[in-house]
Amino acid sequence: MATQFDPASGTRDFLADDVAKRERAFDVIRRVFARYGFEPLQTPAFERLDVLMGKYGEDGDKLVFKILRRGEHEASGEADLALRYDHTVPLARVAAAYGSRLPSPYKRYVLGPVWRAERPGKDRYREFVQCDLDTLGSASPLADAEVLCAHHDAVAALGIDNFQVELNSRRVLAGLLEAFGVPADLGPGVLITLDKLDKMTPAAVVAELTGRGLADGTAGELVTAMTAPDATERIRAALQKSEEGSAGLDDVDNVLSLVSLQVPAGRVRFTPRLVRGLSYYTGPIWELTAPGVAGSMGGGGRYDHLIAQLGGPDVPATGTSLGVERILSLLPDDDAGQRGRLDVAVTVMGEELAAASFDFAATARAAGLRASVYLGSSGKLGRQLRWASDQGARWCLIYGGAEADAGTVTVRDLRSGEQQAVPIGDLGDDLSARAAADASQDGR
Amino acid sequence: MATQFDPASGTRDFLADDVAKRERAFDVIRRVFARYGFEPLQTPAFERLDVLMGKYGEDGDKLVFKILRRGEHEASGEADLALRYDHTVPLARVAAAYGSRLPSPYKRYVLGPVWRAERPGKDRYREFVQCDLDTLGSASPLADAEVLCAHHDAVAALGIDNFQVELNSRRVLAGLLEAFGVPADLGPGVLITLDKLDKMTPAAVVAELTGRGLADGTAGELVTAMTAPDATERIRAALQKSEEGSAGLDDVDNVLSLVSLQVPAGRVRFTPRLVRGLSYYTGPIWELTAPGVAGSMGGGGRYDHLIAQLGGPDVPATGTSLGVERILSLLPDDDAGQRGRLDVAVTVMGEELAAASFDFAATARAAGLRASVYLGSSGKLGRQLRWASDQGARWCLIYGGAEADAGTVTVRDLRSGEQQAVPIGDLGDDLSARAAADASQDGR
Repeated sequence: MATQFDPASGTRDFLADDVAKRERAFDVIRRVFARYGFEPLQTPAFERLDVLMGKYGEDGDKLVFKILRRGEHEASGEADLALRYDHTVPLARVAAAYGSRLPSPYKRYVLGPVWRAERPGKDRYREFVQCDLDTLGSASPLADAEVLCAHHDAVAALGIDNFQVELNSRRVLAGLLEAFGVPADLGPGVLITLDKLDKMTPAAVVAELTGRGLADGTAGELVTAMTAPDATERIRAALQKSEEGSAGLDDVDNVLSLVSLQVPAGRVRFTPRLVRGLSYYTGPIWELTAPGVAGSMGGGGRYDHLIAQLGGPDVPATGTSLGVERILSLLPDDDAGQRGRLDVAVTVMGEELAAASFDFAATARAAGLRASVYLGSSGKLGRQLRWASDQGARWCLIYGGAEADAGTVTVRDLRSGEQQAVPIGDLGDDLSARAAADASQDGR
Repeated sequence: MATQFDPASGTRDFLADDVAKRERAFDVIRRVFARYGFEPLQTPAFERLDVLMGKYGEDGDKLVFKILRRGEHEASGEADLALRYDHTVPLARVAAAYGSRLPSPYKRYVLGPVWRAERPGKDRYREFVQCDLDTLGSASPLADAEVLCAHHDAVAALGIDNFQVELNSRRVLAGLLEAFGVPADLGPGVLITLDKLDKMTPAAVVAELTGRGLADGTAGELVTAMTAPDATERIRAALQKSEEGSAGLDDVDNVLSLVSLQVPAGRVRFTPRLVRGLSYYTGPIWELTAPGVAGSMGGGGRYDHLIAQLGGPDVPATGTSLGVERILSLLPDDDAGQRGRLDVAVTVMGEELAAASFDFAATARAAGLRASVYLGSSGKLGRQLRWASDQGARWCLIYGGAEADAGTVTVRDLRSGEQQAVPIGDLGDDLSARAAADASQDGR
């Protein structure tokens, strides 16, 4: 049940284990991208309202979070700023602002939250991380193949191995409509319906196509060509008949031949029904999907004029967007919690011994271990050992009156229960040796 | 000059070198905190308006960025959400929401942006990173000493070694007022003026104190006691006369004795004039300052009832906040730019050789190197070598017709200019060996 202490609707708090899991995945992704020579970019959480509005269509604009003017202007009820809705519009602004001071081509990645006032639901948030990889300033199919391979490698590096890359080209779609004689005004609707062939029966798709006004025969031919056992050959043959279709096949084959050496056989497949909703794509398009997983793990394509439309320079561009939240939901929860918060827990047996205990924790940290003293008010050893165990600590240092008299610290192995008296001056070396023994045993 | 492509007033774009410098510093800070057993927390960028409003005083409330309601409610001009203004109010909300599911004590750090509608200026931003370290649920001076040591270690780990920790206690301040017979209603104003002793002459401070209504004699005695060569002894003696003052001295001495073993001698000093503006502190307070640096590198203290006032449970609490942006401005720009974007730059000498070049880049990445092919349109080797050099690449792979015929790749060392023909099958090993040789030479 929602309480007044829950985070705002559609947003989440991330406690330690969640942060650990997310940051670990983000690090993997960043490392893959850096290896491809992409560099990071961070833009502010909010932009001036005029930078964002009118860029996402009527429906998108409604989902932008707007920030009220301040001070004497607050009463106007007007907004002058808005939260970032995606990373593409800020990229266009940056390209315009920095121009030739950016490397050419400009290969950048971004990994950060965006905000959309969607109706919250399962796996649908109002604050979520989006991760984009884009190359501005190259018209080469190598640039398309590069962002696609980097996206692929990032997903694979996260340990996901059962996924597909569906590849198509906007020009294939245009060629299809031309080859099958679909009237121009029906084109966009027909493509949207064809894209449902992965979810609906062929008969249902034909029905929807004719419902859109497409002639019975054309609808049947199209669907048969796209669902036959030899569909790819049929589509390829049909596309040869159209100039746009041939160019689209070249798009697809160029990327296929570049990518094929670097990904497992069969992972990338030509998928003529793939549309990707956004109208701004101009060349190759792709989407990463996994069997049995609703929604995609992201996708992208070439979008040669979008940056100019968004207010940036008119540069060729290609990019891909990782469905990070979806990908995160596929990863197993990691063992951060099991690893524990501390390596070394230090008891505090009375006020006059506290400074020494505090210093032992520092000794453990200097040996590279995570360490802390007991901060509670109980002077009982049993209570403090329970705290040490709750922290998941590997060792507990006990320093009471007897130890103080002997000039030693009792090091208790919380796994075996064994205890050893260690001279105070040897504590750092002793802990280092224990950690090294663990590391060699764990093969770390 | 500001243009339409600049980020919104008071915010910044961070390009690659800036991101590298900032993230490197953040990593250092996170590692220090983790070593003390603090765990990360991430809360959303915005909270419900009622969670934030009324928590920052009248002046603070005006600086909160409010988010307009959406859809049919947008026209109302009302806000229902607001951007995070600090990390303390979200912490109080989290403490209330998760209660006993949090570890006890709850030691957490947070490192993320906050937003304040301040008038932008030099080193004053509307979006800036704030880094907080807090322990909820411990009344022990060990907890105060721990957050202070962690703050200290983080600053030191960043390579800053010329700084001071000024230490005081709210109870010292109360004791001072009592010991010198300052009327209760003048207390807060007197403390604010006394805190200016590091910037104003003693005479000017006396004048300001009498201007506030303090008796001439009292003002003179106070300022003399605090500025005399033996000021610390005088103040200590005066504080003994007051119960609150004695308790304050205990606060200070407890922390001093715990911390002194772990920081360089003389780094932490008892500073009776230190006030720290915020009224919510209840025990030890501290501030990190550096000679010649305006403003502080952060500070904190014990604030035992604040979490309850902010809507959370009534737990003892202590914490410190790093002035991250200030600290970043003190760090040298790092050599990320000089290191270059790529280790291996691969030429593309014609379309028919592109797939092989694309594959060589993958071979280099598999060897752990950052690698990319040339994505431009020029087929000229000179142009492509210039690109390789602009990328700061260490090696350039050249693969033209001659190499294709010979089954080799030309590996050009961009530092020495030397070239070598390497059989294609040996490329990965060759690059690994070169990288290893560099690494052993650099002592990496």
